[in-house]
Amino acid sequence: MKPFIYHNPTKLIYGEKQDLIGKILGESGHKSVLLVYGRNSIKKNGLYDEVVKSLRDENIEIIEHSGVSSNPTLSHAREGLEKAKKVTSVLAVGGGSVVDESKAIAAAALSNCDIWELFTGKVPTYALDLYVILTISATGSEMNDGAVLTNEKTDEKFSYKSKLNYPKVSIINPKFACSLPNDYLAYSAVDIIAHTIEVYFNAEVHPNIQNRFAENIILSTIETTEKLLKNQNDLDARYEFALCSTWALNGLTKIGVGDVDFPCHMLEHSLSALYDTPHGAGLSVVIPAWLKWLVKRDDSQIRGFAKAVFNKDSAAEGIEELEKWFRKIGSPISLNELDISKKEINKIAQNIYKTSLRWRMSDIYTVNVIEDILNNAIH
Amino acid sequence: MKPFIYHNPTKLIYGEKQDLIGKILGESGHKSVLLVYGRNSIKKNGLYDEVVKSLRDENIEIIEHSGVSSNPTLSHAREGLEKAKKVTSVLAVGGGSVVDESKAIAAAALSNCDIWELFTGKVPTYALDLYVILTISATGSEMNDGAVLTNEKTDEKFSYKSKLNYPKVSIINPKFACSLPNDYLAYSAVDIIAHTIEVYFNAEVHPNIQNRFAENIILSTIETTEKLLKNQNDLDARYEFALCSTWALNGLTKIGVGDVDFPCHMLEHSLSALYDTPHGAGLSVVIPAWLKWLVKRDDSQIRGFAKAVFNKDSAAEGIEELEKWFRKIGSPISLNELDISKKEINKIAQNIYKTSLRWRMSDIYTVNVIEDILNNAIH
Repeated sequence: MKPFIYHNPTKLIYGEKQDLIGKILGESGHKSVLLVYGRNSIKKNGLYDEVVKSLRDENIEIIEHSGVSSNPTLSHAREGLEKAKKVTSVLAVGGGSVVDESKAIAAAALSNCDIWELFTGKVPTYALDLYVILTISATGSEMNDGAVLTNEKTDEKFSYKSKLNYPKVSIINPKFACSLPNDYLAYSAVDIIAHTIEVYFNAEVHPNIQNRFAENIILSTIETTEKLLKNQNDLDARYEFALCSTWALNGLTKIGVGDVDFPCHMLEHSLSALYDTPHGAGLSVVIPAWLKWLVKRDDSQIRGFAKAVFNKDSAAEGIEELEKWFRKIGSPISLNELDISKKEINKIAQNIYKTSLRWRMSDIYTVNVIEDILNNAIH
Repeated sequence: MKPFIYHNPTKLIYGEKQDLIGKILGESGHKSVLLVYGRNSIKKNGLYDEVVKSLRDENIEIIEHSGVSSNPTLSHAREGLEKAKKVTSVLAVGGGSVVDESKAIAAAALSNCDIWELFTGKVPTYALDLYVILTISATGSEMNDGAVLTNEKTDEKFSYKSKLNYPKVSIINPKFACSLPNDYLAYSAVDIIAHTIEVYFNAEVHPNIQNRFAENIILSTIETTEKLLKNQNDLDARYEFALCSTWALNGLTKIGVGDVDFPCHMLEHSLSALYDTPHGAGLSVVIPAWLKWLVKRDDSQIRGFAKAVFNKDSAAEGIEELEKWFRKIGSPISLNELDISKKEINKIAQNIYKTSLRWRMSDIYTVNVIEDILNNAIH
């Protein structure tokens, strides 16, 4: 194991506790909040009314910033930043995209900078207090220091980390996800598995305790996804699925494993930036393609994965089973299914390579290697 | 799974970073500290000199409180409390006992109360900032809200919890444990397994993700203990062992499992209070005895344990393997080995029963049941 620092100050509240949000802000002395959300779903399911009532009961002034998209955009975040200059806190109500855009707004509002500067090297100095009510578990953003945003003018989907990005309090009510269509569930499952797999395969060292921790998250994600596809109202499974999501990217899997690359995310972000591909759908295409490339270089960790997760003895079978499972839950496994043809591959590889320096990845990912990987996704 | 709240604000630093402690206190504005430690070991291994130099380099005034014993006592903690009234922070340097006594001192110093009041119902209002340099991993106290102390006049070993008990920063340097004798390692391993087992067996509900998480900690503790018995300088194993200890009792295992009883700790605390038994040694005696009682009531979770940890098909074999393993690492498994005879059992059971109300345990633990359990430890 490697030395490490772990500090995650976010307070998690798992349960039907969204009505507490007014009191939580009030107890921290807030008199105003930027309420960030997506489109209409929180109005349809009553969450919007409940949150607004809870805030008004504590006399907290609300400024609204709605319309966050599933790949949140720079232009929309900039609009939020203008409004944030009039409040003392930010409340994200929605899924990971809403949380990510809120993080960037909260930091830029007190760091005297444009939002895109945060994603291109500027270190934020202060941030507005951020609170979260999470309705979809997938990105882990409710308990971590990262944020992702797309600059739609330059086709760049970038991320940045800052300890200022940890939410103060995140309320996770897994019940809200019961009404979502199954493709959301599938893409969320892929995202959780992707976060886990990146660390599991790309860490510097692989202590047994962390191998088993990662395998546990993957197994639990698979188990609970299958339960939820059978019965979308299985609340036990909803909670456990949500916990998989939080644990997959709140820093626990990275404890003691040294530096970690995120190549599958690097590959996927360009698909999202160029084609507005849903993140989970892009990941289920690139993960098997990337594993088929990796297995030729070093199959040791893939063999462990195959045994622990699918009880298979060879690395190739492990990859095949994962691909089959993605297909089974309805997530795409080829570029063709995303309506991206082989002739686009060079363009995508160029976009990936251009942004690869930002990922501080090992320099093995040349344009040729990226093309080789993407070609594994044509079938 | 059950709804839950999780908030653990302690910053963990795993590594050879004890020389940073002066800067860490200085950056938080501290000008004085109560330096709490045990007997001579930190003077022999150079840690004392290193810590004092680091604090003096930042012009932090040091008041010393040494002589903490392995079952820390109320009278000694009270001496520390008097000294703590002159400082703004507390630094615990040592194992779990030093950390626990420091927690109680830090809270009593700003809560205008006697130390024993904290252990008998008083809710602390404020606490001095607490910092930790951990030299022995076992209790998990470096990243949790609990503290344990023995009132040697009344033979009561009590614990209490408060969110004020979380250390601000804990530096864990697993290298310090390399020079400890093997019985420390064995007792520490038992303590880690005990913390994990209590939640694993005594939780209200048993989600798969938490079952596997607990099994992982137990497996990793067994693996790394065996490596360390072969090579006490195996630093990889030291780090992983230390992480098992932190994870076993920092709240992660309790997420989503509802209420949890700690019967083995209840039983053991009376052994420590009456006979000054080392905590780990007492636990390795009571755990198998308690499991032999439990297996007759409900063996379902024990069967899962037997399969996952020892690859055995029956609950009885699982208990036998655990007992054999405790014996193998040199920890006692019978009261006889602790020089406690069968005729003491009623006295011990009375002590346990007297304190059992404090543990808010299910009322199944009558004096008769406690005697039955303890009788399983006579062989």
